[in-house]
Amino acid sequence: MINFINSIKSKGIKKIEKSAISEIIRVINRPEIISLAGGLPAPETFPKEIISSLSQKVIEKHWNTALQYGSTEGVILLRKIISDFLKEKGIKAKWENIGIVSGSQQALDFLTRIFINPKDNIAVEAPTYIGAIDAFSFYQPNFVEIQTDEEGAIPEKLEKILKNKKIKFIYLVPTFQNPTGKTMSEKRRIEIASVIKKYNTILIEDDPYGYLRYKGKHQKPIQTLIPEQTIYLSTFSKILAPGLRLGFYVANDEILKLMKSAKQTSDLHTSNFDQFIAYEYIKTGSFKKHLPKIINIYKKRQKTMLDALEKYFPKNFSWTKPEGGMFIWIEGPKNFNSLKTYWKAIENNVAYVPGQYFFVKPNQGKNTMRLNFTNITEEKIILAIKKLSEIIKKNI
Amino acid sequence: MINFINSIKSKGIKKIEKSAISEIIRVINRPEIISLAGGLPAPETFPKEIISSLSQKVIEKHWNTALQYGSTEGVILLRKIISDFLKEKGIKAKWENIGIVSGSQQALDFLTRIFINPKDNIAVEAPTYIGAIDAFSFYQPNFVEIQTDEEGAIPEKLEKILKNKKIKFIYLVPTFQNPTGKTMSEKRRIEIASVIKKYNTILIEDDPYGYLRYKGKHQKPIQTLIPEQTIYLSTFSKILAPGLRLGFYVANDEILKLMKSAKQTSDLHTSNFDQFIAYEYIKTGSFKKHLPKIINIYKKRQKTMLDALEKYFPKNFSWTKPEGGMFIWIEGPKNFNSLKTYWKAIENNVAYVPGQYFFVKPNQGKNTMRLNFTNITEEKIILAIKKLSEIIKKNI
Repeated sequence: MINFINSIKSKGIKKIEKSAISEIIRVINRPEIISLAGGLPAPETFPKEIISSLSQKVIEKHWNTALQYGSTEGVILLRKIISDFLKEKGIKAKWENIGIVSGSQQALDFLTRIFINPKDNIAVEAPTYIGAIDAFSFYQPNFVEIQTDEEGAIPEKLEKILKNKKIKFIYLVPTFQNPTGKTMSEKRRIEIASVIKKYNTILIEDDPYGYLRYKGKHQKPIQTLIPEQTIYLSTFSKILAPGLRLGFYVANDEILKLMKSAKQTSDLHTSNFDQFIAYEYIKTGSFKKHLPKIINIYKKRQKTMLDALEKYFPKNFSWTKPEGGMFIWIEGPKNFNSLKTYWKAIENNVAYVPGQYFFVKPNQGKNTMRLNFTNITEEKIILAIKKLSEIIKKNI
Repeated sequence: MINFINSIKSKGIKKIEKSAISEIIRVINRPEIISLAGGLPAPETFPKEIISSLSQKVIEKHWNTALQYGSTEGVILLRKIISDFLKEKGIKAKWENIGIVSGSQQALDFLTRIFINPKDNIAVEAPTYIGAIDAFSFYQPNFVEIQTDEEGAIPEKLEKILKNKKIKFIYLVPTFQNPTGKTMSEKRRIEIASVIKKYNTILIEDDPYGYLRYKGKHQKPIQTLIPEQTIYLSTFSKILAPGLRLGFYVANDEILKLMKSAKQTSDLHTSNFDQFIAYEYIKTGSFKKHLPKIINIYKKRQKTMLDALEKYFPKNFSWTKPEGGMFIWIEGPKNFNSLKTYWKAIENNVAYVPGQYFFVKPNQGKNTMRLNFTNITEEKIILAIKKLSEIIKKNI
């Protein structure tokens, strides 16, 4: 049967079935491991009592629509209230231009589905979000890497790419990027937007972490500069609960229509029940009240990790100092091999993600690693960083 | 912008963006229309108090896993309890071979995704489920039609196809088929299974309606005869609530692994919160208690529709008399054009689906139509059938 199944697999599935990182991630589920590897929110941040009471409210008020088949683009009440709260971010979008998906991951899948034929070019930052690489890969694109500096994608490098290649879309995470935590300044955003405006192409702006700002000033999404050419993505995973699988996108009329077709044939629509919970979460003011609690927990954890790095890590290592988000990106000296060190770290019950997995081209980022600080206690953060420093010092 | 977007669309989206039926369906949302067109469960069948109280139970007992990111294949407790309750249907499947998806529609998308390259052959009944045609079409397969009789797909016709063509998979709805309501006898199932066994191919057995039996004897799924070659699909949409978007599949180890890759890159996993509600629905015995109430409502509505057809419909029309499900399939004389009559019916505030949309090849089923009886009251069913008969008599 294995041979038979192998013989009938599609080209797309062959591209994604072997994820090198899954082997890496698999080991970290052992209970004795302190994991800085994941990208999970802290369960302590889940507003569980709120969700419990909102569930009842949803059944009382909306059961008829919440439990029935619904609109492919999403529950209208939710789309309308998202349209309202996006105004605070500077995004002016009619509710008709907002679509609900099952996590913003699904928007990445559908956007590739509607635009990409095999060998079409997609431009992504080096490094970039691993889940995006996976979602794109099924459609067999040609990845083009945009070089980055301390603010993410470099406008001149992007322009050079757009001048020489037909790029179907550009994928960026401009705020607290995964994996680096880097954020583009206002100036950088304007430069990037003007390059994209100049060349006929589309920006996918992924913004899952925007609300998780622990200091500094909010940066307006690039979407606000080039709304017609941007598909803006965000999610309830970091501000409500990822288990509900609720994401949303903002797109122009034509793209929304295509996204609707993709969703219609794929899963009809996202859980109406969960959508109404998200609606009531915003509507009742619970979100506004709850968000500071989430920020308070993460802010402390991030500071703890940055302090521990300062105190324990070898002096020839450097790292990002993000003003929010979930990750810190570490760069070691040229001779540091983070994959080799990874297995030593696992032996010592500490896990992280070796940075090379965030690059689409081989032989990059071998001296880098991504650390997550949201999902473990401050005590364990200190312990993990201390251990990790010792392992690195021994193995370099 | 429209022209630009048009210029960068993928081949796949071009196949699905224009659904002829959407124009047909669009008009039926007018409140004055009595619609026999949809395939919606009756809201009266939704166990809303049960769902409200189970939601609280889920937060109390399972909040930690229900609200966090979870396993791509689905919540283990749910997979285990599905494995148990499938035994009653004769399906012996380990929980490891059961996967949860966001409605069985999503399984159709993913199965095509993992097996189909453009121009690969897929065999489907003529007529077949329209949502399956849509899901398959994105991947640009070549559809091969299997001729049907009063029990659905004809084994000899299927064998002839498999002898002459390499078919990647066969898609069948053997029980209370959508659109016809037809059900295969035990003998027919054995014949179909033996043909599939003989030729190296895969069966997708879609069984959304199996629990909705109003009389007669339960037929074991074809899966029980050729488990290694079958992917069995079912759903909670008809026995709990479609708004939750919960479906599941049974597949062998290799296929489950590929389905996991597809889901991982598409939406990570289905809402854990909703999955736990389904788990508790079965676990607490609520499902067993609630199902007879659903059946009781639908059984009466079906009888009402069959009686009304008998009483009012022209004598040169015939229709199926299913022992369950949601649909009745009507065949008129050769000169009856159900699409022409459709617009007359709409003028008179009655809607149905013209049968031609359920065929993958043109110029078929022009004298047929699909009627749904689950989503309107008995009074309205009688009124609609009466009106429809008059319209037909006038326009033939």
